[in-house]
Amino acid sequence: MNRHSLSLLAAAVLAAATAHAEEGMWMPKQLPQIAKALKAGGLALDPRTLNDLTAFPMGAVVSLGGCTASFVSPQGLVVTNHHCAYGSIQYNSRPDRDLLKQGFYAATLADELPAAPGSRILVTVDMKDVSADILDARTLALDGKARSDAIEATEKKLVAACEADAGHRCNVYAFFGGLQYQLIKQLEIRDVRLVHAPATGVGLFGGDADNWVWPRHTGDYSFYRAYVGPDGKPAEFSKDNKPYLPRHHLKLASPKTSPLNEGDFVMVAGYPGRTNRHRLPAEVDFAFGWEQPARIQAMGESIALIKAETAGRRDGEIRMASRMQGLQNYFKNLEGQQQSYAGSDILARKQAGFDRLTAWIHADARRQARYGADLAATQRLLAERQATVRAEHLMGFMSPALLNAARQLYEAAEQRAKPDAERKSGFQERDLPRLKAAQQSLDRRYDEPSDKRLAAHFLAQYLAQPAGTLNEAWLGALGLKAGQDEAAVRAQLDKLYAGSRLADTATRMAWLGKDVAAFKASDDAFIRAAVALYGDDQKREDRDKELGGQLQKAYAGVQQAMIDYHASRGEAVYPDANGTLRISFGKVQGRTPGADGGTWTAFTTLRGIVAKHKGPDEAGGEFNAPAEQLAAIQARQFGDYYVKALDSVPVNFLSTLDTTGGNSGSPVLNKKAELVGLLFDGTLDAVISDWDFNPRMVRSISVDARYMLWQMRTVDRATRLLDEMGIR
Amino acid sequence: MNRHSLSLLAAAVLAAATAHAEEGMWMPKQLPQIAKALKAGGLALDPRTLNDLTAFPMGAVVSLGGCTASFVSPQGLVVTNHHCAYGSIQYNSRPDRDLLKQGFYAATLADELPAAPGSRILVTVDMKDVSADILDARTLALDGKARSDAIEATEKKLVAACEADAGHRCNVYAFFGGLQYQLIKQLEIRDVRLVHAPATGVGLFGGDADNWVWPRHTGDYSFYRAYVGPDGKPAEFSKDNKPYLPRHHLKLASPKTSPLNEGDFVMVAGYPGRTNRHRLPAEVDFAFGWEQPARIQAMGESIALIKAETAGRRDGEIRMASRMQGLQNYFKNLEGQQQSYAGSDILARKQAGFDRLTAWIHADARRQARYGADLAATQRLLAERQATVRAEHLMGFMSPALLNAARQLYEAAEQRAKPDAERKSGFQERDLPRLKAAQQSLDRRYDEPSDKRLAAHFLAQYLAQPAGTLNEAWLGALGLKAGQDEAAVRAQLDKLYAGSRLADTATRMAWLGKDVAAFKASDDAFIRAAVALYGDDQKREDRDKELGGQLQKAYAGVQQAMIDYHASRGEAVYPDANGTLRISFGKVQGRTPGADGGTWTAFTTLRGIVAKHKGPDEAGGEFNAPAEQLAAIQARQFGDYYVKALDSVPVNFLSTLDTTGGNSGSPVLNKKAELVGLLFDGTLDAVISDWDFNPRMVRSISVDARYMLWQMRTVDRATRLLDEMGIR
Repeated sequence: MNRHSLSLLAAAVLAAATAHAEEGMWMPKQLPQIAKALKAGGLALDPRTLNDLTAFPMGAVVSLGGCTASFVSPQGLVVTNHHCAYGSIQYNSRPDRDLLKQGFYAATLADELPAAPGSRILVTVDMKDVSADILDARTLALDGKARSDAIEATEKKLVAACEADAGHRCNVYAFFGGLQYQLIKQLEIRDVRLVHAPATGVGLFGGDADNWVWPRHTGDYSFYRAYVGPDGKPAEFSKDNKPYLPRHHLKLASPKTSPLNEGDFVMVAGYPGRTNRHRLPAEVDFAFGWEQPARIQAMGESIALIKAETAGRRDGEIRMASRMQGLQNYFKNLEGQQQSYAGSDILARKQAGFDRLTAWIHADARRQARYGADLAATQRLLAERQATVRAEHLMGFMSPALLNAARQLYEAAEQRAKPDAERKSGFQERDLPRLKAAQQSLDRRYDEPSDKRLAAHFLAQYLAQPAGTLNEAWLGALGLKAGQDEAAVRAQLDKLYAGSRLADTATRMAWLGKDVAAFKASDDAFIRAAVALYGDDQKREDRDKELGGQLQKAYAGVQQAMIDYHASRGEAVYPDANGTLRISFGKVQGRTPGADGGTWTAFTTLRGIVAKHKGPDEAGGEFNAPAEQLAAIQARQFGDYYVKALDSVPVNFLSTLDTTGGNSGSPVLNKKAELVGLLFDGTLDAVISDWDFNPRMVRSISVDARYMLWQMRTVDRATRLLDEMGIR
Repeated sequence: MNRHSLSLLAAAVLAAATAHAEEGMWMPKQLPQIAKALKAGGLALDPRTLNDLTAFPMGAVVSLGGCTASFVSPQGLVVTNHHCAYGSIQYNSRPDRDLLKQGFYAATLADELPAAPGSRILVTVDMKDVSADILDARTLALDGKARSDAIEATEKKLVAACEADAGHRCNVYAFFGGLQYQLIKQLEIRDVRLVHAPATGVGLFGGDADNWVWPRHTGDYSFYRAYVGPDGKPAEFSKDNKPYLPRHHLKLASPKTSPLNEGDFVMVAGYPGRTNRHRLPAEVDFAFGWEQPARIQAMGESIALIKAETAGRRDGEIRMASRMQGLQNYFKNLEGQQQSYAGSDILARKQAGFDRLTAWIHADARRQARYGADLAATQRLLAERQATVRAEHLMGFMSPALLNAARQLYEAAEQRAKPDAERKSGFQERDLPRLKAAQQSLDRRYDEPSDKRLAAHFLAQYLAQPAGTLNEAWLGALGLKAGQDEAAVRAQLDKLYAGSRLADTATRMAWLGKDVAAFKASDDAFIRAAVALYGDDQKREDRDKELGGQLQKAYAGVQQAMIDYHASRGEAVYPDANGTLRISFGKVQGRTPGADGGTWTAFTTLRGIVAKHKGPDEAGGEFNAPAEQLAAIQARQFGDYYVKALDSVPVNFLSTLDTTGGNSGSPVLNKKAELVGLLFDGTLDAVISDWDFNPRMVRSISVDARYMLWQMRTVDRATRLLDEMGIR
């Protein structure tokens, strides 16, 4: 590991770290520690203000769960990416009101539409280190499932205490693979409404072809609004609800007085999902050598099957659109990682780093005693887990959606029979709204022909494996036999689908209230299968907990050794992304080399939209800019958003910001913490940065706020929102 | 017109011209005049050698009619673009032997396959100014059709005398819109064979998506061989024929001793088809304002209809592949031109230049007397011609292929009744092989479902126009009525197609020998229609000749005025491209800006192939590099073709060479006249250079010879050809 970065623990080595501080997704509480680098980079605020989650600007940054967003008005207006609001746009679309194609603009508050079920706006109000609580003496003495259970029990206790403050959602997050834990408290806004989304020809311009690509011209922005009850507290959707009044919101940078230029300081606050920069070589080898190729294979097949099954059925297409977008996005990401990995020396470097760590441990008896056993155990346990992943890989693809729904419903019934505190995580009272939302959302996202085709395809693939390796419980529950071909599977699925009423949303929702006995007495085909599978599901869960407990213990030791080893060399380590609030900083910057045959400049412009535009029929309609937009460009109606050096309006820009999935929708801020863009993508040749950071290659892609405002003012005439944001 | 260039006539102003000499497609005889610029650019040869068409290197450069090629071995091996040999690869493909997909490599001379019917290799042996012959006193006194006829008669006489030298093909070409004429004599090699073509995944890598695009990674090369009779003279295909032994052939530059680098001098010799840099504003306005949009519309419809009709029929796809490729290529070109034109000041600049010319003419009584009438007449005549183009635009799209074949066959019979010298150009004895080839090639390129669909679509569109504007002869000949919809047209076409036996190649070929009476007695539906249309076809032809004669007279006057005007200002003018041999020179160079959001470097590399590769299923299979190629790249088997600065093998390169359609396949030569690449494309944002040259934007795209050789040696193992070219 030849990276210089920052330890959570070792403030003493900060000086060495700051030189490369553009690498890293920092925890807010670390920022005062790197104040010097932030100041040197150009930050005009006092860096200490970034530590206070309830102050400006961090108080304006929110999570959507999987995406990031920010308040941009005193009335709870929230801006995020179009692709983050995609599910809600899709949820409100019908063949006769195709919001995906046409876009949506609520002319008044009353026209704002409920977002997709389960949509949440989460405002982080506190982060607290609870490592000592989770890993107390009692737990540290345990191993295997007992250890997993003890950790889960403490987590639930901490969460319950935290959530005693009504309207909040609390979670415990592991850092460094279980070496440390943080309790994070978030205000949970449950009435989220769709306010504005541009047409797909803007918000998804370039579609899958341009996904992970530069030069880019995507207007990837949309607006939500947070609503609360009349008492100002989070509440379920109601006509009586009022817009939430956030304590802080971001102001948009003035294009005249604070124009963004190449080389400018930028920072981004958001919720990056997962990086794997501290993984062991065995994990790298398995991920790139087996797991990614297997997923690429199965996802490629899924994409082709869904396309075939929805061809010519716009309703089916809309129902599968969200799933399809997710599949294509991840598929392209994994392909990019595979491409960067092939022929690279990543594994060799990881191995060399690990060999140095191993040698360092073995060179000293005390270190040998402290870490030796964990090191050996981790290697063995990882191999064990990999064997399970291989064996059960297809199970993630072959289960009919209604069977998954039935299994969730039955588990909810089983858990409800216990006192709340003893229920599994995910099935406590606090989880009920999410369970409901998950069951409800199938209403718009279930397409039987696609679902059945996928299930038949992957079940047949599963059954073609050696009979001895198959899960007998599955075969029994679904009435399948080893070696059956797709036609035979299909015939059996026809019976199961015909024998279930779970496709009816009211029927499905009613099961959320029923008890175990009702499930056991049901003749619904998928309910029966879920009940039949339950024992095996529990067995596998226990097995995972046993392994998880062992692995937590050993892996945390290895991570500690890694941190200590680097500290001994004056090198520091920052934690991998884990879905918690982080801040990255860097600058607006192009790249040399860009793609083969060119270099990249920092900004794209409206000219590129015209150059890429292909109309509705060519290239799958992915480059289909609205006629009104093209006319405005043609007429050079650039207004305040014109940048002389570009002789146009900037559309997207590149920056050196270190980000990953989950950062989508994050506000990009200038040195005064004014919003200058929305982060939405990286480039395919650098997505491997999740595993291996290369500052020469890594660039994040953001929508320039000037493009968003230009489109809203000139083309979509969204004046109500512009006024609300105080533009002009 | 703010260009500096070179007059054919005014050698006195050469000094001014040479500074911008990279603009211009020069006639070989002009090159000694710009010797200084060539030397300054880096040419190591004596520039005077480029004047001799029979000496090295010009003697090695040949025309394929529409494309350029060059001899690269003493045994008549010819290299050109894959897309120039596409018709021959397609012609030899069958569903069970898909040479388009798999590529082709003749292991021995005996395995070389006949190229598509009509394929020719044309070696220019002489160019002679015949302006004084064509525009003699008698002709200059004529106008209208009489003038057209006189010019045609003189041309035929000159050609006949020239072609008395057996095995040669001669043609008269007009320069400056009929101001000057050159008689060009070419050795016509009629036995052309396909020797080697890489797989489509190499030769057409990137397909339509990458057409006119940089960065580019297309291996656009293929090999033909010229064969002659045992006596060494051109002959029809025969097993007894032998490879032609050219007097000169090009040597490939050694990657070790003459590596091509950015900034290096390059020149290209070839047959550019048509530029329009001297057009009047009225022509520019009509071309961009009406004709191009109308063509784009009709071609877009054609592409969609052919796709729909051949979907799932690989045989139909192969039959229509060559037509489709041509349509898509031209469609994209026109779209690019339209895009550059929209919002540009081209028309205003053309108009301003023309206004200056007009003012200059009117400012002087002598000039007024000499050019005034021509200027006025040209404007009027152009408007007249434009009205005809508008009225008959759809006729170019709506005629069934077999009706076109029948009309050509019947015209041949009508002409054959006259003495050879009196026959129309195109229907003399010398033209018989081409007529035969045209009729023969339908054998592989006729797909009835596609053809009928296209005819029905465009005929219905034609019939929907106001009844008074329709051509009555056409309606009568095809049994159609104004206002009929596509279903009605289709029903009538069903009868016509069913009533014709011309789809049978033997039947069709037999008609080439029959006389007028036989045609008039025939009950074949398309023959009857052709006979019925003949009177109208002649009437329209006479109308065009009348207009053509008037226009030649007036237009030549305007062109002379334009040349004189520029000469009076010390500016010079070079002739527009017209399908004759030209030389351009420039240097290897990237571009800033490239496309929006980036700049372009001069070379692409093998890395880009890996990055673009998508396999057979994604993106229409257009980015589907062969597995063996990908493996060789992965294994870094770069051999002698490795370039350290690129850390790879160069694939394509950009240069400032001024080229256009027809230059495809042209050898790109270094300062020693060694072959370093094959020119094959320009970029879409600069195709408007055919009308308006912009040195900042214009770049030509070439295959780097090192990529071709690397692929041939490492992947396709075409050792016989490498040995023959003396590689290693």
